[in-house]
Amino acid sequence: MIVNVGVVGATGYAGQELVDILLRHPQARLAGLYSTADEPRQFSSVFPRFAGRVELMLRKLDLKELADNCDCVFLALPHTTAMDAVPYLIRKKKTVIDLSADYRLASADVYKSAYHAAHKDKGNIKKAVYGLPELYRQKIGTAQLIANPGCYPTAAILALAPLVATDAVDTSSVIIDAKSGTTGAGKKAVLESLFSEVDEDFKAYKVNAHQHMPEIVQELSKLAGRKVPVCFVPHLLPLKRGILETIYVRLNKKVAFDTERILDLYRKFYKHEPFVRIRRNGEFPSLKDVSGTNFCDIGVQADRGSVIIISAIDNLLKGASGQAVQNMNIRYLFPETMGLV
Amino acid sequence: MIVNVGVVGATGYAGQELVDILLRHPQARLAGLYSTADEPRQFSSVFPRFAGRVELMLRKLDLKELADNCDCVFLALPHTTAMDAVPYLIRKKKTVIDLSADYRLASADVYKSAYHAAHKDKGNIKKAVYGLPELYRQKIGTAQLIANPGCYPTAAILALAPLVATDAVDTSSVIIDAKSGTTGAGKKAVLESLFSEVDEDFKAYKVNAHQHMPEIVQELSKLAGRKVPVCFVPHLLPLKRGILETIYVRLNKKVAFDTERILDLYRKFYKHEPFVRIRRNGEFPSLKDVSGTNFCDIGVQADRGSVIIISAIDNLLKGASGQAVQNMNIRYLFPETMGLV
Amino acid sequence: MIVNVGVVGATGYAGQELVDILLRHPQARLAGLYSTADEPRQFSSVFPRFAGRVELMLRKLDLKELADNCDCVFLALPHTTAMDAVPYLIRKKKTVIDLSADYRLASADVYKSAYHAAHKDKGNIKKAVYGLPELYRQKIGTAQLIANPGCYPTAAILALAPLVATDAVDTSSVIIDAKSGTTGAGKKAVLESLFSEVDEDFKAYKVNAHQHMPEIVQELSKLAGRKVPVCFVPHLLPLKRGILETIYVRLNKKVAFDTERILDLYRKFYKHEPFVRIRRNGEFPSLKDVSGTNFCDIGVQADRGSVIIISAIDNLLKGASGQAVQNMNIRYLFPETMGLV
Amino acid sequence: MIVNVGVVGATGYAGQELVDILLRHPQARLAGLYSTADEPRQFSSVFPRFAGRVELMLRKLDLKELADNCDCVFLALPHTTAMDAVPYLIRKKKTVIDLSADYRLASADVYKSAYHAAHKDKGNIKKAVYGLPELYRQKIGTAQLIANPGCYPTAAILALAPLVATDAVDTSSVIIDAKSGTTGAGKKAVLESLFSEVDEDFKAYKVNAHQHMPEIVQELSKLAGRKVPVCFVPHLLPLKRGILETIYVRLNKKVAFDTERILDLYRKFYKHEPFVRIRRNGEFPSLKDVSGTNFCDIGVQADRGSVIIISAIDNLLKGASGQAVQNMNIRYLFPETMGLV
Repeated sequence: MIVNVGVVGATGYAGQELVDILLRHPQARLAGLYSTADEPRQFSSVFPRFAGRVELMLRKLDLKELADNCDCVFLALPHTTAMDAVPYLIRKKKTVIDLSADYRLASADVYKSAYHAAHKDKGNIKKAVYGLPELYRQKIGTAQLIANPGCYPTAAILALAPLVATDAVDTSSVIIDAKSGTTGAGKKAVLESLFSEVDEDFKAYKVNAHQHMPEIVQELSKLAGRKVPVCFVPHLLPLKRGILETIYVRLNKKVAFDTERILDLYRKFYKHEPFVRIRRNGEFPSLKDVSGTNFCDIGVQADRGSVIIISAIDNLLKGASGQAVQNMNIRYLFPETMGLV
Repeated sequence: MIVNVGVVGATGYAGQELVDILLRHPQARLAGLYSTADEPRQFSSVFPRFAGRVELMLRKLDLKELADNCDCVFLALPHTTAMDAVPYLIRKKKTVIDLSADYRLASADVYKSAYHAAHKDKGNIKKAVYGLPELYRQKIGTAQLIANPGCYPTAAILALAPLVATDAVDTSSVIIDAKSGTTGAGKKAVLESLFSEVDEDFKAYKVNAHQHMPEIVQELSKLAGRKVPVCFVPHLLPLKRGILETIYVRLNKKVAFDTERILDLYRKFYKHEPFVRIRRNGEFPSLKDVSGTNFCDIGVQADRGSVIIISAIDNLLKGASGQAVQNMNIRYLFPETMGLV
Repeated sequence: MIVNVGVVGATGYAGQELVDILLRHPQARLAGLYSTADEPRQFSSVFPRFAGRVELMLRKLDLKELADNCDCVFLALPHTTAMDAVPYLIRKKKTVIDLSADYRLASADVYKSAYHAAHKDKGNIKKAVYGLPELYRQKIGTAQLIANPGCYPTAAILALAPLVATDAVDTSSVIIDAKSGTTGAGKKAVLESLFSEVDEDFKAYKVNAHQHMPEIVQELSKLAGRKVPVCFVPHLLPLKRGILETIYVRLNKKVAFDTERILDLYRKFYKHEPFVRIRRNGEFPSLKDVSGTNFCDIGVQADRGSVIIISAIDNLLKGASGQAVQNMNIRYLFPETMGLV
Repeated sequence: MIVNVGVVGATGYAGQELVDILLRHPQARLAGLYSTADEPRQFSSVFPRFAGRVELMLRKLDLKELADNCDCVFLALPHTTAMDAVPYLIRKKKTVIDLSADYRLASADVYKSAYHAAHKDKGNIKKAVYGLPELYRQKIGTAQLIANPGCYPTAAILALAPLVATDAVDTSSVIIDAKSGTTGAGKKAVLESLFSEVDEDFKAYKVNAHQHMPEIVQELSKLAGRKVPVCFVPHLLPLKRGILETIYVRLNKKVAFDTERILDLYRKFYKHEPFVRIRRNGEFPSLKDVSGTNFCDIGVQADRGSVIIISAIDNLLKGASGQAVQNMNIRYLFPETMGLV
């Protein structure tokens, strides 16, 4: 079975990455590439990197045309705009994998306070499945609308899930010190993202105020069965791809796990996961271990009740487009790693 | 004697660099900082780097106020806009050091074709002295309007002057393969200057069509006493500061110079120059030798009539703000290196 | 048909890249990984990036074991050491793809002067086919020993071949201004390759004295039917992957080609080549167009008898491991692009 | 008064930086440059960057010659080797500013466990003053042996001192997530410091096991009047200069400070400090605010008993050579900022 796929927002970083993966995917056929461009243009003339590999035109989004040509639609649009396209596609029975934040949060109020915009499609929020395969594989398998997780949340939730799900951590103690490459900010012409500004620099931003916080809180809280607040400080790295999160938690007083015991817990929790790799005692991941791959690597160290967890992903792959294709694979019953290794 | 100086365009890269140099200059007093900002703002709140060092406000340019407060004005404005300010300042008898291209070219027609704008102040072009101290020190000493050279031209002209001025090169053979850091493009929010686009990339741009070509041609032609065309290919380096130019020329057939003979010529030509350093036979400059300094370093290698010359400067210092202060020092009879080493 | 392949020198940059490609190659089976390590170690524990993908051990090179396990051997060894392994493998009828320089030069004397070591296996030099598919595809198809081209020569020869082979250039005029990323220098712990030394720096090195010059001269001379000297200045870029060469030639006096005519020539010359892409008039390649791919992109501009040619490759792919696999594909009659797009 | 100064270890990154600062220092005269080099060499031929600025030779360390020529000696040697030179210099009544770790720790046992070497000069440990001017200015003023602080400890201690000294923090809660540029590792030819390894990568290292931890613990404990343990995770940034530390602490239960109150405390604590700048509420420092300067910038945010403190320094200036010259200024009664702004 070949799935006809469309990519909306194909000129952004996640969009280009989707095209790259889908070109190599044996069961997917790229059937449409869309952006905000008024005039149709050869995709490969906009991105010479794809010359000789893609013949498709880049067209202005036309929902009807999109629905006519594609079975599965990847929306790589800025948040607050994906929800303009979703209702029509859902009505047309398309499978929608939305890389924006629009359907990740169960509460429209939380959405509004995080993204400073009222939700315009509350009806479909309930239909959406949070597309983190390691937690929701079964639901993803039958979902029509998949809310692909944010990059920071992917690394954070996978890093914390085994401990939080087993009630081992003091849920008031979670500190996430996150560092991201620049593609995480998308392709927007703003002064602060210029090479001359970012190169040789490093800084924190949106300290304890990043829009991904409620998403992390929502998922950790579901795992814990009670509200799990987090302290979340994202930083901007002078490199293109990758997120590394250094996470600090305290164990519950009754829990006396040492590093080996925790690693054991993690290995079991992720035993059947093709894209989560637990590092050995004494080892931690670096970005280059995961850059260009769909893996999430995790290292752990515990000392007298305090635990340091370090997780690393490629923000454009496991943190966006790779995970989106992983979700497509699950949804269409393809081997989960198809096109991704 | 203390000179009251004003910096117009203080928020750009050259402007910030001027502020940095002038703060350490024992004979200059920063008397005004101007930009396009509507509301006056504390300069150090816009650039926290200067906190504790600069108390001045950043104000919207008001030519009268500027002229009232300052004796010497540095214009670090985009080309085609400096010429709006110059006529008034000249009338007010101010010393103007213009870092834009507006008064570098003797021909308004050449200016128009290079900068795609008609010159609005042709009368003052003749008054302007091309501010390359190594060639025009004496005229700079009495100039009221100094046209500070472009970054690429500074490195190219200094690299070629000794051979061209002595009629040693085949003037039809000049090839300049130039590489510049990103600050050379100024501080403009455009997609192609994003960190995510420039990092890990390298490319040529404006191949044989860069606006600095006529400036190089003009100065080399003056030195040669006849038209010297150049082939000029600029490239963009993934780093912030520095220009390195690899220059290829053939010697005139009658000239049989070897490397040592050419080095000797260069050493003599620049014997009394505080900011030109000639490298030893077998050695060539790298950007880090000059980055953060006002030096231009030059290395040479000759082989059977072909000569390779490599010159390196910091584009924001010897290629812009450092050279501008060097010109101020000459104009005000301060030691030429004051504030610059 | 599945080919059992061995990679010798699997810990270097080209070696790791070979492993990465061969893992995804449908007709190749990685049968052995070798390095200088005394103790066998899990390859994926040395390079956690490969965890979950490679189960093989990294072993100390044992030629007999290698020959027993593998049909096709990739030698990613430093030059002057590959020739220690080749004779045995040739005797054992193995197909050898040598990424070192040891069998690229037809003359042992030229080899000695370029690599400062006497050749120890002169007998096999004649057997070797220079592995540039665009020029020697047919011979590669039946070769037992393939001398995989150097990175700089690949970009230079592909850029110049159409003009040189048609006798269109003044062969005394060839200037190659080459810029390479740092992986080109291999993985050697030397001070000048430290991040703290290379970052934010740019410089020329081995000016007109690089060991790849004779290789370029050899191949251009074969194409021209007479000696073609080159002026070759390599530079080191502060980035990991990629080579971009800006090449300057003059046309023969009788040849009056303009840009379009030359582009036409190039398009025809490379008409059936899957990995050479000619850019449109007015466009030139940047590194990011080819980085991570096996393509060589070429742009051309001509002006009154002078031609600028810019070519770009990924030095680890088309400049090393990608081209090596392309050669394997040709040798084993696999589709030439297999595993490479 | 002019002080004759010697720099031992002048070829390392801190050593070069010292030379650079001291050349511009109006009261210091560079009297000797020493390294491990066997043959004397012109310093500026080893580092062409200094050509035209330094005439001195780089000589092999000869303690007698050093003592004869210099009043004040900067030791920029690897730890465990400075203590070979100190005893002689102390006997000769020289002022010694030691940039190594050898005299920072009051306990020789702690030193041994941190640096894996027995201390060879226990007698002088007591004489040493910890050279953090903001805490020990008075003692530095009369010290003969100044133990210049480590780079990580400088940023950490300055960030925490106001809260720790006023008993406001739960001293069991200190988490320091530190990020450093590559020059912090010194100039050593090791594979893991190659550009090809570090570029585009980011990782933690020596997790909770870095040799600077005991130094931080020692100083915080002195301020608190009781043992203050820290959780300390250093990371390596792909950039050359700068340290940024994101620090997480909980306030004591009885302390109900909000952000403004804490900022007020910090402003008062550092009121007279020329090199500590407290950021406004809502602002945090980035590396570029301090890179190339001797400043330590600090931002704070508090939320329900949890406090985030971010501090930034240039590791080679306030974290090493700049602070060393600041100490010299204090010791010799020069204006504290002389040569440093």
